[in-house]
Amino acid sequence: MATDTNTTQTPGARRTIISVDAMGGDRGPAAVVAGIAQSAEKNPDIGFIVHGDAKVLKKLIARKRGLAERCEIRDCPEVVTMDAKPSHVMRNGKNTSMWSAIEAVRNGEATVCVSCGNTGALMAVSMIRLRKIPGVNRPAIACLWPSRNPGGFNVMLDVGADIRADAEDLLQYALMGASYARNGLGLTRPRIGLLNVGTEEHKGRAELKAAQELIVGKAAEANFEYVGFVEGGDIPSDRVDVIVTDGFTGNVALKTGEGTARLISELLREAFKFSPLSRLAALLALTSLKRLQKRIDPRRVNGGVFLGLNGTVVKSHGSADATGVSAAIKLAFTLAQSGFTEKLAARVASAVTSRHDAPTPEQPANGTKE
Amino acid sequence: MATDTNTTQTPGARRTIISVDAMGGDRGPAAVVAGIAQSAEKNPDIGFIVHGDAKVLKKLIARKRGLAERCEIRDCPEVVTMDAKPSHVMRNGKNTSMWSAIEAVRNGEATVCVSCGNTGALMAVSMIRLRKIPGVNRPAIACLWPSRNPGGFNVMLDVGADIRADAEDLLQYALMGASYARNGLGLTRPRIGLLNVGTEEHKGRAELKAAQELIVGKAAEANFEYVGFVEGGDIPSDRVDVIVTDGFTGNVALKTGEGTARLISELLREAFKFSPLSRLAALLALTSLKRLQKRIDPRRVNGGVFLGLNGTVVKSHGSADATGVSAAIKLAFTLAQSGFTEKLAARVASAVTSRHDAPTPEQPANGTKE
Repeated sequence: MATDTNTTQTPGARRTIISVDAMGGDRGPAAVVAGIAQSAEKNPDIGFIVHGDAKVLKKLIARKRGLAERCEIRDCPEVVTMDAKPSHVMRNGKNTSMWSAIEAVRNGEATVCVSCGNTGALMAVSMIRLRKIPGVNRPAIACLWPSRNPGGFNVMLDVGADIRADAEDLLQYALMGASYARNGLGLTRPRIGLLNVGTEEHKGRAELKAAQELIVGKAAEANFEYVGFVEGGDIPSDRVDVIVTDGFTGNVALKTGEGTARLISELLREAFKFSPLSRLAALLALTSLKRLQKRIDPRRVNGGVFLGLNGTVVKSHGSADATGVSAAIKLAFTLAQSGFTEKLAARVASAVTSRHDAPTPEQPANGTKE
Repeated sequence: MATDTNTTQTPGARRTIISVDAMGGDRGPAAVVAGIAQSAEKNPDIGFIVHGDAKVLKKLIARKRGLAERCEIRDCPEVVTMDAKPSHVMRNGKNTSMWSAIEAVRNGEATVCVSCGNTGALMAVSMIRLRKIPGVNRPAIACLWPSRNPGGFNVMLDVGADIRADAEDLLQYALMGASYARNGLGLTRPRIGLLNVGTEEHKGRAELKAAQELIVGKAAEANFEYVGFVEGGDIPSDRVDVIVTDGFTGNVALKTGEGTARLISELLREAFKFSPLSRLAALLALTSLKRLQKRIDPRRVNGGVFLGLNGTVVKSHGSADATGVSAAIKLAFTLAQSGFTEKLAARVASAVTSRHDAPTPEQPANGTKE
């Protein structure tokens, strides 16, 4: 996997550099630095640029042996709060750690950016600083979902970058999702499904039928399999690898799944506390339950990836602890190693180019630009 | 509760009559009759009109002691299959058990209809035979959802009657959902939430903002509390009693929740099969696990209710077994006893009337018609 060599110019390192926004998460910079330390220990091939309050960060990093040599600190006086309005951050956010973290990717100093901060603001700043890939109308956020597939996860997008998507957008999501599944999950020929209220051809909204036609038309060329419409119940199934939907539906589905899992685990805990016998049973069942918990631990699937920009941004959960941050960094590293940003751009560009294969006089070919 | 007396004219009975479509479910008429028998045994106040193949039904009913006296059989030569197109059934379904079951409600012979059959066909036939309540543009399907609330359930609608809903439709869903929560769950002042991708005022689609204004304006008069926007994670929470959304989003959320619960229970089973020790643990944990399973058993929350028609129809899950069918019948009975159909109609009509309080010359009052 490391044959690619690193793509950055940091002197003295064959390292992949990850740019980390250390501020703005619910648990503050201590959790982020602890996550960085976990990743650094596990993987010697990562270097970090860490953005935030330098005084605080220096102290936190100094506490972990050997971490200081792996981290470059960028002092940023301001933090984007969770309730900040994206439009406000876009206009006034230049001194924030979030802005600085994205800037490092824009400058080519780092390959991928990781942040636990405000999703809306992170997307807004990513859009204006990294800009959209030619051919992409709406960027998307892709998440991983525990599933029955051998790898243990499916991909779903968009889970909240944009509340609307037309047929063309859904086609782009399919292309971007396929590219992500190839580079992030190692699937050579991902199976794509379009989320709908039934699997029959006549079901659903008009834009879904139009999107289905477009996606079918690209499947062979873009090297994915289209499995047709899928339903909510298929999201954790092994029928499909990538679930394509608009950001409104995807966000509701993601949060509904998380909420259901949370309810069940709470009820399970209560069930085991019910009587002395059940408490004993829980003790015996602990290993089994831990095995299950590991399988569906939201911290292990931490990291929504922003797709469709000139640069990759991984959004870690706002409440992520060290394990969660470390999982997001691992994902960022995997994507950086695979040259994901460039491959995704090439994939979308080739789809756009082929759309213009037979240019009409009114619509000149612009394939060369892409 | 029984002070209402029965609303039907069946001679010799102070019984509430439920019309049951015995055909069209995945498990055939045997499961449906077994469910009827369970309900009949538990509740002496229900009488049944059972629709389907009379020869088969007579035999099945005769096997259960005392059931024949409680059931009137209506012979129907045809069955609506699961893959039948709703439009085809609307044109050619007159001889089906589904049609006949709805007809008994239309005629006033029964108060509520229960069917395990094809949802789309059931809604289509219900629409043309029972017709919409004046003031309702789109009927809705409401489902129950296991939650942290004291009663154990929340209501969500629409979960699939219609894939679109505008602001006015969402207001009607709020009114109908409040009425259902009052009569089906016994909540005097239900809390209503509007499903969105965030709880902040500025989030989401334009029609949701418009719907929010309409719903806020009706809350006092219709005696419900509006809690604002809710997210997917709130659906199983105790923040809200009734979740209002369009049928596309609601259907995806419902199936996503079911799929997540199924995945977790499968993984739990596998975790407990992992080793001899974990199998022993499972044995000890059995009571605790059963307690949990009962709490989230989809059979116990079986029954989507069609709202907005002149008559109440309960859609049981296609794969429902005797317990599931019996749960659907119990729900039908509760709604029948509360005079739900009439109360819902009155509620919607009063909302429509008050909308026309100050008629303009261009838009003459039609409050008298409603």
